[in-house]
Amino acid sequence: MILTVTLNAALDITYRVPSLRPHATHRVTEVAERPGGKGLNVARVLAALGHEVTATGFAGGVTGRCLREGLAATPGLVDALLPVEGVTRRTIAVVDAASGDTTQLNEPGPEISPAEWAALRSAYDDLLPTASAVALCGSLPPGVPVGAYADLVRAARASNVPVLLDTSGEPLRRAVAARPDIVKPNAEELAELTGFHEPLRAARDARRRGARAVVASLGAQGLLAVTPEGHWRAAPPARLRGNPTGAGDAAVAGLLSGLVERLPWPDRLARAAALSAATVPAPVAGEFDRDGYEELLGGVAVTDGVGAV
Amino acid sequence: MILTVTLNAALDITYRVPSLRPHATHRVTEVAERPGGKGLNVARVLAALGHEVTATGFAGGVTGRCLREGLAATPGLVDALLPVEGVTRRTIAVVDAASGDTTQLNEPGPEISPAEWAALRSAYDDLLPTASAVALCGSLPPGVPVGAYADLVRAARASNVPVLLDTSGEPLRRAVAARPDIVKPNAEELAELTGFHEPLRAARDARRRGARAVVASLGAQGLLAVTPEGHWRAAPPARLRGNPTGAGDAAVAGLLSGLVERLPWPDRLARAAALSAATVPAPVAGEFDRDGYEELLGGVAVTDGVGAV
Repeated sequence: MILTVTLNAALDITYRVPSLRPHATHRVTEVAERPGGKGLNVARVLAALGHEVTATGFAGGVTGRCLREGLAATPGLVDALLPVEGVTRRTIAVVDAASGDTTQLNEPGPEISPAEWAALRSAYDDLLPTASAVALCGSLPPGVPVGAYADLVRAARASNVPVLLDTSGEPLRRAVAARPDIVKPNAEELAELTGFHEPLRAARDARRRGARAVVASLGAQGLLAVTPEGHWRAAPPARLRGNPTGAGDAAVAGLLSGLVERLPWPDRLARAAALSAATVPAPVAGEFDRDGYEELLGGVAVTDGVGAV
Repeated sequence: MILTVTLNAALDITYRVPSLRPHATHRVTEVAERPGGKGLNVARVLAALGHEVTATGFAGGVTGRCLREGLAATPGLVDALLPVEGVTRRTIAVVDAASGDTTQLNEPGPEISPAEWAALRSAYDDLLPTASAVALCGSLPPGVPVGAYADLVRAARASNVPVLLDTSGEPLRRAVAARPDIVKPNAEELAELTGFHEPLRAARDARRRGARAVVASLGAQGLLAVTPEGHWRAAPPARLRGNPTGAGDAAVAGLLSGLVERLPWPDRLARAAALSAATVPAPVAGEFDRDGYEELLGGVAVTDGVGAV
């Protein structure tokens, strides 16, 4: 199975409104709710691709219960979340019906106690031996040590389990130094990590800092991969409008599924770029449009080498 | 006791963000949750003023449970809400930390079945004999007949219980014809009911349509009352910035408490205007600042007669 870790899980709520106007009152015309947080989005896409996936992390309170009920309805996904005293956060994506543009409101996460973090650490060690790959995704809730991901990366490497990391800020900086197999920052996270705004230069710098491979998600420009096996860029055929929430998570699922299926890098990247693009027009954050994915997959242009970047 | 009816109760969530920008991602810095819907806001203010209050209406699902837990923590308030199959809606008030301005997102209400409406109708009849006044507040959820408030107004009048109505649209139009003792529309609702945009003319027209007294809430301009005993305008001393959610509900609580205490109209109006103004700077929708209220009460200017309007 593939193991995903979501320390700051969320109940993702999507609202559709005719048009969001600051300081006005809006009647929400549609409400959708689903389990969220980057790692759970990754887990859902992996399950939809037919992989066995186990999701660990934290869930608590009323929102945690709603989230776990949502996970129970996902075939192929094993819920190994640990209960916590705090209340799982909500995120609200407000989608303008006219333009498809999205405004995001993210609650802060619950406070995690040292005992809760120790329980997660131990559960992770128990899950690693049966994992074919690990994804560490998203922000750290209050109370989790800033070196948490570095610790989890080292444990995965000690067990010879390939590990992908998708986070930002200081947790990313520390965990990169622990030598993860893949990091998947977006352009802003990569620039923050390295100080370089030019993605290729920044990705090379991130490799020097410890990452074996760097796959940067560059929004509508697709993916840039800098790996020991080569450099590629994967661009979706067209820019799609919609809700970009979960596009990066779908890319992570594409990369991980390609890794465990031992696909060559260009095929992994094509899959990741197509999955990523297929989430944008989906009505609910973190879902992907399967027909759209199949169609997009044929249209992704993967270009080889540095010159093309 | 004073009876409040909230057919479309809500779990009111308040988010503080630095500044709401459409199509951007926001970290919410503070989250507050409390029972909402106009009738429950009125009930809370009445309880805070020292009145015994019973709140009926509908509550269901996870959000309904959260809402009822919140009510249980309010001294002086008796929860007589009826359980329903549907899920109580949420409302989100997004407060800009810098300006204090608020953007409101209101979910639609749950579908109410004919049997659930019949149960409410019967519970209301059982509560009326011990009520000193009734407040019928807010929108109707799907499934409740459009003539629901008209029906509840007639039942209150048949029991000689004074009844205040605060709603809009077709439910307001129908219930006004059933001759409620007081209606409290805002300027927009009053214009929609009567077709007149000039508040005094519109309020007089609403009386002709059946309301015994009309108290229109005119935002920063305060209240306009047109009653068989006279016409008044009550203006708060200064315009306050903040979250206007619940300001109208606080005015309703002021009017009702003044009614059961047999205060003369000018005193009722001063109380209503001061309570209403005192909710605006409160950090959470539907609360009021008690010190602010006491101070504002002395500063409300109640002017008599039509000429002053």
